[in-house]
Amino acid sequence: MKNKFYKYIQNLQDTITAKLEAVDGKAIFKEDVWKRPEGGGGRTRVIENGAVFEKGGVNISGVHGKLPDSMQKYFGVEDADFFACGLSLVLHPKNPMVPTVHANWRYFEMYDKDGTTVDQWFGGGQDLTPYYLFEDDAIHFHTVCKTACDKHNPEFYETYKKRCDDYFHNAHRNEGRGIGGLFFDYCKATETMSMEKWYNFVTEVGNSFIKSYVPIAEKRKDLPFSKEQRDWQEIRRGRYVEFNLVHDKGTLFGLKTNGRIESILMSLPPHVQWVYDHQPEAGSEEEKLIQVLQNPKNWV
Amino acid sequence: MKNKFYKYIQNLQDTITAKLEAVDGKAIFKEDVWKRPEGGGGRTRVIENGAVFEKGGVNISGVHGKLPDSMQKYFGVEDADFFACGLSLVLHPKNPMVPTVHANWRYFEMYDKDGTTVDQWFGGGQDLTPYYLFEDDAIHFHTVCKTACDKHNPEFYETYKKRCDDYFHNAHRNEGRGIGGLFFDYCKATETMSMEKWYNFVTEVGNSFIKSYVPIAEKRKDLPFSKEQRDWQEIRRGRYVEFNLVHDKGTLFGLKTNGRIESILMSLPPHVQWVYDHQPEAGSEEEKLIQVLQNPKNWV
Repeated sequence: MKNKFYKYIQNLQDTITAKLEAVDGKAIFKEDVWKRPEGGGGRTRVIENGAVFEKGGVNISGVHGKLPDSMQKYFGVEDADFFACGLSLVLHPKNPMVPTVHANWRYFEMYDKDGTTVDQWFGGGQDLTPYYLFEDDAIHFHTVCKTACDKHNPEFYETYKKRCDDYFHNAHRNEGRGIGGLFFDYCKATETMSMEKWYNFVTEVGNSFIKSYVPIAEKRKDLPFSKEQRDWQEIRRGRYVEFNLVHDKGTLFGLKTNGRIESILMSLPPHVQWVYDHQPEAGSEEEKLIQVLQNPKNWV
Repeated sequence: MKNKFYKYIQNLQDTITAKLEAVDGKAIFKEDVWKRPEGGGGRTRVIENGAVFEKGGVNISGVHGKLPDSMQKYFGVEDADFFACGLSLVLHPKNPMVPTVHANWRYFEMYDKDGTTVDQWFGGGQDLTPYYLFEDDAIHFHTVCKTACDKHNPEFYETYKKRCDDYFHNAHRNEGRGIGGLFFDYCKATETMSMEKWYNFVTEVGNSFIKSYVPIAEKRKDLPFSKEQRDWQEIRRGRYVEFNLVHDKGTLFGLKTNGRIESILMSLPPHVQWVYDHQPEAGSEEEKLIQVLQNPKNWV
């Protein structure tokens, strides 16, 4: 399974970066291949200063070795080895009318000291962070997510949509990071869902990414915008930073276990503002966004 | 002691904001007085878009009530009440030749359920974060810190200078946030240092702030700078954000215990950049700064 999924994310990285370069039309991804001293490594691809994408990364990694102490504690195990691989992407478009998107699909195995696999699971999801809310875009994104889920289980969409809203939540601001999508974790074999079936589900979601996001980027990338709208985007990007650095378990885990810093922090936006006590005007488009972030909607 | 110290920080806030407005010459501080539902409140003063200070805050607060659960756990106590007050300031100048500065002086009391004071201590410090290193400025700042310390104990400067370097450390980058200053905490009564003597020490340090920073701001505020130097400042501000959101205990404590978000996060810089894998040129002024941040120096 681990080889099969790692091959899958290698191919998916190629497919997604090729498509995004075509959408951008100007910038291309810069590739950094890196090795992890304790085992494994990754292939980071970053795009900067494009016509559409101001900054973005589509990264894969496959790491293995002794499970770091902090993670042994977290999982309540001792002397365990692990393998983990995944694809992580974040795109920060230049135009505030185009939403930021994040996605991640990952697979994890844990072994006892004899090398026997004692646990294995999939995780992942994708979520959208608009700066201006186009309801059509929200409906489109969530419809693609639901369609992918429904092929595998009629309850997945509702369950994983709610988990996404719960997870990508800036508790200290009492608002969502964005308008959600899917979030699933610890997808382990059960009587009805073998690991093979989970593989089919996760790759279905991964394959749906381009369809979920690219039409939105293409539809909005040439819309006009003002300096004030750009400022608003940069202020909202500050909330994105707050979530990633204060709340996101993946980011904090990476920072505290000697991960490759530049690959982890490629998720941070290129230009960001913090303005003291900024409040959108009553009745404005900016306020409309905040209201939806404070009260997650069912889009489908 | 709590009333005496709260009066002290009220006056100090007035003195510092008046002086900074005079240095800025353009912007004035905006004041927000706020109440904490569970007891106490504060007076936040923020300056934005000044001639010298792009963003800054000089805030006082005095809060009391039931010690929040997370803090009871942290201190290993049960059913305790507390009082805490302090002044916190952060200044982000516009010109990259002027360093950012942070300072905080605080006092804490803890009570058992009968209202008896069971513990009390002072804490605080001040530290400098330059974007370009002027050795004269580093020496001046540390000399003022040392002079204030030496009046109270010949070992304080060395001890608290080292604690400052250890605390304001971006472990995930293996570099200091800045070039340090002083950091002290849990300053409790001992045979040789009564609380009265600690009060004299902490207020001596607080009173030295203007002398430690203002001459540097005045000396550098009109130096010319290029777009590239401004970009460097914004990239380094990103490291400041990383420290405050990932490592700073005070910020995280505030965010997780329902503090006043806008007063806590006034510390974040106004315009910030994250550039993928940015490396300063060999032999440049930018690289010289990084080397000092990676290897803290003794300036006095």
